[in-house]
Amino acid sequence: MKHTVTFEPDNVAIRVDKGTNLLEAALAAGVHINATCGGQGVCGKCRVMIEAGEVDSEKTENISQEEYEQGWRQACRTSVISDCTVQVPLESRGLRRVVAQKLDMGKAERKIADLETIPLAEGWQFDPVAIKVPLQLTAPTLQDNVSDLSRFSAGLRQQHDIENISVDIQCLKIMPNILRTSDWSVTATLTADPAPNMLLSQKDKDRPLKLVRMERGDTSEQNLAIGLDIGTTTICAQLIDLKTGRVMAERAEYNRQVEYGEDVITRIVYAQKPEGQKKLQSLVVSSVNQVIDELLEDTYTSKKSISCIAAAGNTTMTHLLLGIETRHIREAPYVPVANFMPVVWAADIGIDLPDCVQVYSFPSVASYVGGDIVSGILGSGVFQKEELTLYMDIGTNGEIVLGNRDWLVCAACSMGPAFEGGGIRHGMRADRGAIEGFHINPVTLEPMVITVGKKKPRGICGSGLISVLAGLLSACVIDRNGKFVRDLPSDRIRPGRFGYEYVLAWAEDSGTGHDIVITEVDIENLIRAKGALFAGCLTLLETLDLSFDDLDRIIIAGAFGRYINIEKGKEIGLFPDIPVERFHFLGNGSLVGSRLVCLSRGMLGEVERIAKMMTNIELSDNPSFMDKYMGALFLPHTDARLFPAVSKYLEANCKIIRSERKAR
Amino acid sequence: MKHTVTFEPDNVAIRVDKGTNLLEAALAAGVHINATCGGQGVCGKCRVMIEAGEVDSEKTENISQEEYEQGWRQACRTSVISDCTVQVPLESRGLRRVVAQKLDMGKAERKIADLETIPLAEGWQFDPVAIKVPLQLTAPTLQDNVSDLSRFSAGLRQQHDIENISVDIQCLKIMPNILRTSDWSVTATLTADPAPNMLLSQKDKDRPLKLVRMERGDTSEQNLAIGLDIGTTTICAQLIDLKTGRVMAERAEYNRQVEYGEDVITRIVYAQKPEGQKKLQSLVVSSVNQVIDELLEDTYTSKKSISCIAAAGNTTMTHLLLGIETRHIREAPYVPVANFMPVVWAADIGIDLPDCVQVYSFPSVASYVGGDIVSGILGSGVFQKEELTLYMDIGTNGEIVLGNRDWLVCAACSMGPAFEGGGIRHGMRADRGAIEGFHINPVTLEPMVITVGKKKPRGICGSGLISVLAGLLSACVIDRNGKFVRDLPSDRIRPGRFGYEYVLAWAEDSGTGHDIVITEVDIENLIRAKGALFAGCLTLLETLDLSFDDLDRIIIAGAFGRYINIEKGKEIGLFPDIPVERFHFLGNGSLVGSRLVCLSRGMLGEVERIAKMMTNIELSDNPSFMDKYMGALFLPHTDARLFPAVSKYLEANCKIIRSERKAR
Repeated sequence: MKHTVTFEPDNVAIRVDKGTNLLEAALAAGVHINATCGGQGVCGKCRVMIEAGEVDSEKTENISQEEYEQGWRQACRTSVISDCTVQVPLESRGLRRVVAQKLDMGKAERKIADLETIPLAEGWQFDPVAIKVPLQLTAPTLQDNVSDLSRFSAGLRQQHDIENISVDIQCLKIMPNILRTSDWSVTATLTADPAPNMLLSQKDKDRPLKLVRMERGDTSEQNLAIGLDIGTTTICAQLIDLKTGRVMAERAEYNRQVEYGEDVITRIVYAQKPEGQKKLQSLVVSSVNQVIDELLEDTYTSKKSISCIAAAGNTTMTHLLLGIETRHIREAPYVPVANFMPVVWAADIGIDLPDCVQVYSFPSVASYVGGDIVSGILGSGVFQKEELTLYMDIGTNGEIVLGNRDWLVCAACSMGPAFEGGGIRHGMRADRGAIEGFHINPVTLEPMVITVGKKKPRGICGSGLISVLAGLLSACVIDRNGKFVRDLPSDRIRPGRFGYEYVLAWAEDSGTGHDIVITEVDIENLIRAKGALFAGCLTLLETLDLSFDDLDRIIIAGAFGRYINIEKGKEIGLFPDIPVERFHFLGNGSLVGSRLVCLSRGMLGEVERIAKMMTNIELSDNPSFMDKYMGALFLPHTDARLFPAVSKYLEANCKIIRSERKAR
Repeated sequence: MKHTVTFEPDNVAIRVDKGTNLLEAALAAGVHINATCGGQGVCGKCRVMIEAGEVDSEKTENISQEEYEQGWRQACRTSVISDCTVQVPLESRGLRRVVAQKLDMGKAERKIADLETIPLAEGWQFDPVAIKVPLQLTAPTLQDNVSDLSRFSAGLRQQHDIENISVDIQCLKIMPNILRTSDWSVTATLTADPAPNMLLSQKDKDRPLKLVRMERGDTSEQNLAIGLDIGTTTICAQLIDLKTGRVMAERAEYNRQVEYGEDVITRIVYAQKPEGQKKLQSLVVSSVNQVIDELLEDTYTSKKSISCIAAAGNTTMTHLLLGIETRHIREAPYVPVANFMPVVWAADIGIDLPDCVQVYSFPSVASYVGGDIVSGILGSGVFQKEELTLYMDIGTNGEIVLGNRDWLVCAACSMGPAFEGGGIRHGMRADRGAIEGFHINPVTLEPMVITVGKKKPRGICGSGLISVLAGLLSACVIDRNGKFVRDLPSDRIRPGRFGYEYVLAWAEDSGTGHDIVITEVDIENLIRAKGALFAGCLTLLETLDLSFDDLDRIIIAGAFGRYINIEKGKEIGLFPDIPVERFHFLGNGSLVGSRLVCLSRGMLGEVERIAKMMTNIELSDNPSFMDKYMGALFLPHTDARLFPAVSKYLEANCKIIRSERKAR
């Protein structure tokens, strides 16, 4: 159910879901309300007056009984439960809204949940990669004394119409005992053998199933899979019920390799040290183990229920997970050992799961276009559609894919981990306390800060960084080069160790006890990152004689927080200046593809086809890319013609702000 | 080149190869010459006079200079090098020859080398199960930076027309280093992946090759395989050069499991003890390791040259080798865990060979018809011919197969290990010093003993036991029940701990320092063994409404010594009384099939087809088999009509001997 919230005195209205937080509604409407504690309710700055309609609100210490009865509330502790009118007091008010209305940018702030989410790839059948089938067999007699395995196979054929299986020797070792101690009633776990080890070219569509586990009695209800995204910074995992297709739980943890370097390059350098490779493998595996433990704890399930793992990661992470040398990925000419990886036993690489669990790794395309991208292309269905799509994955690095069902080209943009918080003074993952929403009052220069979990701010996550950069730019606090405008009347802007900086949260308002800031060096890093991504997209398009206007869709994937803001992304030149309707959101694309493979073994063949279909364009030695990169080191870009709407808005806005500032 | 040797005064002639030992020539001609030291030249009993022609002979201590000049020689130290006439002195002469001539049994004694050896299965192509291909690759550049594996695969495709491969992760781990330290010149070992682990039904003929090893430089000349026959008593192995198809060496060793029981039943009982299974696996593996070490030592080759192993064994041995439970093979209803076994890594089961070596195990048909029989049927080509063939494998047990290219039935006969020397007081393997040829002077009761390697006798091997039993029977030393005739005038026949016994070699002539004897209990065991085999054959034939006369061929396989004598086998009722021309010899059939699989990967599919084609007839609960078994506990058989020629000969012979004995 939706309700309309009208913010006065600007007379801006927004329709939101019942229960939406009022501070989030204001941010979404582009209405500034001072807020510095991230939404925890302690700074008391986000006071508003409810003039009409009902809201659900706590009485906080910052509001006296008298004020409460007058209608004063803290926006961050208030939920919308009816149509209502909200008066924003003078101390909060900015003026951005006026300009935004003029430019018809009313959609500027939207929750990602509202951004159109791309549907899964089409045409897949629910046919899980691991199945569990119960069998009731008859005991052997002298007249019918075929081998245990023959009896078992006949049961599969007769009771489940399964013909073609392969058997691991471990299963043969336990088979006679299991059959006889279960009164010949057992459950078999069979997995798609995606490639008997690994086939470079597998023509046989009718891939045999492989018997990996036998259990006493009927355990066929317990059949789970783990979908993994092995990121350089973060390991994300889903626990998937293969009986229903439902995602039972999702968890993310830092990749413990992070302590040996923030990006793949430093990891590879470390891997070359004695025992370095082993160390990094054991770290990523221990992170995987932790995240699996959490999933099982969350859902009260047992390790024994897990039948298989599908893991998508970039090329370096996939190599490290499997214990394969990474050195030549780093050194020119950037050669991975293999793009297609064998299926391995989870236990063999140290994953703390039963012997019968196999790990399927998504194939890579090149050293810097990995299985995570292939997985995302699978999950998003880009390879099935006629529409020309640009797929952007903004993780620890930026990878882009351009194409449709007929062709796919891809490239890695070397944008680095800035938008994941890497190399940013107070950058962090989208965990509790991460600033994900930001607005600045262009006159008072006071911030409006919303954090994940409404906790005191601890740092800034990816979507927060986009918000902050765009906010500072459109409020004329930084210039087009990313430098702070000097002599603005706020102690929040000050010189620091890393150039000028803006204080997003004072120590007393922060969750760390220190000021949370964004520095000019941070901004430089962000500009370089967005410049690389944009230049990569432009190069890829030009290679095929295309422009941004030719794109039917842009799909944004990556580990952003709960908010992502396309308009703000355009303002800083991260995303191209094309209509917001063409943008779609996939979230963690890599995880989407992993889940899809778990649910549909037919997709294993599609994964292989996609990986082979993708042509990698090497940008690192491409002079045209370097030119475009230099041109993109500006906010939004040196060439205003590439960002017509954004440039127009920024110019108009700045003019108003400057005159307003003079007036005060 | 052949020469004719004429033995006087019987005027018996035989054509033998140049260089044939004179004592062996006499045995082959059915001429008795006393000889008790096995052919070592020390007993001095085999004195003969060369009357015409030239021989190659040592002057031994037992012949004086004067005698030597007169033409006296020791037969066992003399070789035939021209046509010659040999006078056998009175003290050696028997009379069997006279009868034999009458009955036209001149072929009675023949070397196995002269018995028609069955050719290998037809229609196989030399296409070894493991190939080694040299590759010269180009180093990667920024313009050509595909993965190492892609580069390698492209090389396989371009340089060797090999398309479809699978890769083990171990190879990926070493691949980057091997490629770069070899200047991109490597050799790949690829094996037929007979079943990705194990397929119950493999339709795809175009089985992919599997990359199992990468080496620097061109090592393609060193490509060897091991063909193994894992017998209950003996492990036989051949080292096969996969470049030429040549057998480089052959070796046999006792299966060290023997100390835990002579037959599979006692092994299975032992395996049920705690750690028993592991112990037996480690023993058979250590025997395999020993025999492989010997093969490598014999040929000055290295373990690194070995690319694969094909192993055929009975069902129990195959289970034990792979570490799979055997218990239900022994207990009714006699169920093996599996007939088709997965391919395993040699190193995983403890075989001391490089990681890259896989072990292919031949499939079994039932608990007591194992992969060794399937291997023999493959090697002998029985499954390809129109001729109706009876295949008999006389190893530690007796297995028989009846059929042709259209159908195959088989059975296990529970004959036990007697003809391999098991349960025989002085039974032994066909090693140096094993009595393999035997004759007895029916009047003097002195023996003619020939041993493997012409060493002092240490025991009696399989072919020797047939010789001894037939010799004692046809010389009327034992009766048709296998009991010694009492009161014969020889101290070689005496009562002993195991009933009456015959001394084949006195302590001073033996290699052990003890008398070598055959006892009535030994003879009982041999009769039971041959009875079971014969009854099994008869039952199988009757099941299909056939008789021995319908057989086009009988193929004898098994671990006999260098001699096997069909006529003597018939005399004791081991073989049916049909013309000797229909008998063919295969030797170690299991080893023949193993070799064939190593040489031709197309044969892997045929092996599977044979195993599925064979129908097992369970004899253990078959009343008709029990009747036939009781009838066969007689020499040659209670029903003389089943052995018409043999019965006639034995009767006539005994009559002459008895009158001769009376006369003296």
